[in-house]
Amino acid sequence: MISNKKAVVLVSGGLDSATVLAEALADGYVCTTLSVNYGQRHLVELECARKLVADMGVTDHREVAIDIGGFGGSALTDKAIDVPTQMELKQQKDIPITYVPARNTIFLSVALGLAEVLGARDIFIGANAVDYSGYPDCRPEFISAFTELANLATRCGIEGNTIQIQAPLIDMAKADIIRLGIQLGVDYGATSSCYNPQLVGSKSQACGECDSCQIREAGFVEAGYSDPASA
Amino acid sequence: MISNKKAVVLVSGGLDSATVLAEALADGYVCTTLSVNYGQRHLVELECARKLVADMGVTDHREVAIDIGGFGGSALTDKAIDVPTQMELKQQKDIPITYVPARNTIFLSVALGLAEVLGARDIFIGANAVDYSGYPDCRPEFISAFTELANLATRCGIEGNTIQIQAPLIDMAKADIIRLGIQLGVDYGATSSCYNPQLVGSKSQACGECDSCQIREAGFVEAGYSDPASA
Repeated sequence: MISNKKAVVLVSGGLDSATVLAEALADGYVCTTLSVNYGQRHLVELECARKLVADMGVTDHREVAIDIGGFGGSALTDKAIDVPTQMELKQQKDIPITYVPARNTIFLSVALGLAEVLGARDIFIGANAVDYSGYPDCRPEFISAFTELANLATRCGIEGNTIQIQAPLIDMAKADIIRLGIQLGVDYGATSSCYNPQLVGSKSQACGECDSCQIREAGFVEAGYSDPASA
Repeated sequence: MISNKKAVVLVSGGLDSATVLAEALADGYVCTTLSVNYGQRHLVELECARKLVADMGVTDHREVAIDIGGFGGSALTDKAIDVPTQMELKQQKDIPITYVPARNTIFLSVALGLAEVLGARDIFIGANAVDYSGYPDCRPEFISAFTELANLATRCGIEGNTIQIQAPLIDMAKADIIRLGIQLGVDYGATSSCYNPQLVGSKSQACGECDSCQIREAGFVEAGYSDPASA
């Protein structure tokens, strides 16, 4: 039954969601991809996402704008707050300032609305609780709670067509994600992970110093590959 | 402690959310109101909301645009689908076509992000499970599931500052909501409930035939008041 294999895949243009998309496609899902423009300073990731999903053969890509950036409170959306380096982050114990309040809740909610309209029962998200930045909405218990909510919140849920939130990377180390993606043929050269990319000439370049850049770099080193985006 | 009494109140410009706002204000909350422009055809409600909250003394009103209207699938956002009359609706048993997929999930997610930035612990929503249109995301079990999610999803939640989703109208009949609002001084003449308002000259006018208009009218009749918006 073709309709049971529709999925909505949240893609940010980063490494994790590219891997998740490759996995969903390999599993035979017909994927509609969804990127959210939430006023992030690293808007270049939306361009990456567009190119990436087209290269991976996705024909239905959606971009939804939601202006929560104006709420402030995060270095990723508030230009008045500097993106910390990983070094600076390590001196804090708190959830870092790069945390965007309720981001994954908002992303999954929008994906849920789209899934319901499309008749998709599976929503994929690249959340990861291992090599991540300590965000509360990247934990398995968050994914479980959202799954429960999704099945109470929607027409399809209460009609018994269970909605699944699939977070296949949630327990994986970054190096293992990279190994999986390379096996699945992901072009990591086309992904962007940096929280604070700099424009060099007309080209966007990763800062190399933010938490996300450092986690990515360490992952490639551990996996034993060189990062094609740094070439 | 003043900071414990901050609240985010979702306001649509309709009767229910106006009543909820009046209740939150009466309870002593310092309220930031939030309206969502989701591509609804009844955009006039956003104007109503702006005027209403200003009249009620709210100084921090936010409007967030999110273009889920493009997803389609609902008569409230898709101009190709007619808004049914209540008569037509009664011939169906399903969740009606005016249901907007995942709407309250999306609204509460955005409110959650705003609450976290503001340091508010209470989020008010005018969801109602009695005289409503049969939407899955207006039921008490949905509100409970979202509350659980909210406390897993956020920094403040995991730090033990419990977030509460308050839906004080959830079990109330429309007539009782109207009685409560009148007692609290709500100016229902400034609210708009219609799903399909018509422009008559330069003035927006309720259609009188959609489910929302009919539920409102019956509520006023039962409460023993005339609707100031119909005057």
